[in-house]
Amino acid sequence: MTYTSDEIFMNAALEEARRGREQGGIPIGSVLVHNGVIIGRGHNRRVQQGSVIRHAEMDCLENAGRQPASVYQECTLYSTLSPCDMCSGAALLYGIPRVVIGENVTFSGPESLLTERGVEITILQHQECIHLMRQFIVDNAELWNEDIGE
Amino acid sequence: MTYTSDEIFMNAALEEARRGREQGGIPIGSVLVHNGVIIGRGHNRRVQQGSVIRHAEMDCLENAGRQPASVYQECTLYSTLSPCDMCSGAALLYGIPRVVIGENVTFSGPESLLTERGVEITILQHQECIHLMRQFIVDNAELWNEDIGE
Repeated sequence: MTYTSDEIFMNAALEEARRGREQGGIPIGSVLVHNGVIIGRGHNRRVQQGSVIRHAEMDCLENAGRQPASVYQECTLYSTLSPCDMCSGAALLYGIPRVVIGENVTFSGPESLLTERGVEITILQHQECIHLMRQFIVDNAELWNEDIGE
Repeated sequence: MTYTSDEIFMNAALEEARRGREQGGIPIGSVLVHNGVIIGRGHNRRVQQGSVIRHAEMDCLENAGRQPASVYQECTLYSTLSPCDMCSGAALLYGIPRVVIGENVTFSGPESLLTERGVEITILQHQECIHLMRQFIVDNAELWNEDIGE
């Protein structure tokens, strides 16, 4: 069985999501990839750090550290879930040209805004990403609503 | 001399901006106000914490802690500078209905996106906000470009 590079990096984001879940957190993970190398990884830390800004993609970008614009502009951001307004805005701020989304079935962010601004989007509809979020939302509806501002 | 409440809260955001500058950081400040009370304040921490996500508004939201959606939906976010894509996205995520901007002369974020999504925007064109940023950008062009992804 062969895997595409998108599947390989989405699996790394999924590892992050599972790590978050094991910590009692919201199971969303993300990796930032530059020229085929993961330069940042992270997961949602609302529960673990009481954070309202450390969504998975934000945690990933923070963990990647301060990068030159020229690096961001060659990166792909992977997230197990469709990025929300904040995380989409972060991708736009740093001019990240490509976003790969695990699934947008359980939640869908402003994907059309990303597309309009020239970001290439790939949606994998990865069954394990969907399963992880579906189970989490059923078990933790209130926490989930807090995380998406509802 | 009398002050409007917007001027009073913008002055609090300016205090944060000056605090950031005194720490050697980027002089942008923000406060989050709920029913006339400041419930969060912050400033840009790119330099101080090596952070790529702690713009002033993000730092302010983080310092306000986990709030119910019902609180965010009654808040006003003050920033000494027009919020960038990321910070505007954070305001949208949490359904903050009003954003007061110190100035949008030295930098202008996606204000039309905020307006389209129903956020009320007030731009003060506050002379001290403009002066603080102009001076900073002249003295630190490279750092400033990094902060806005350029």
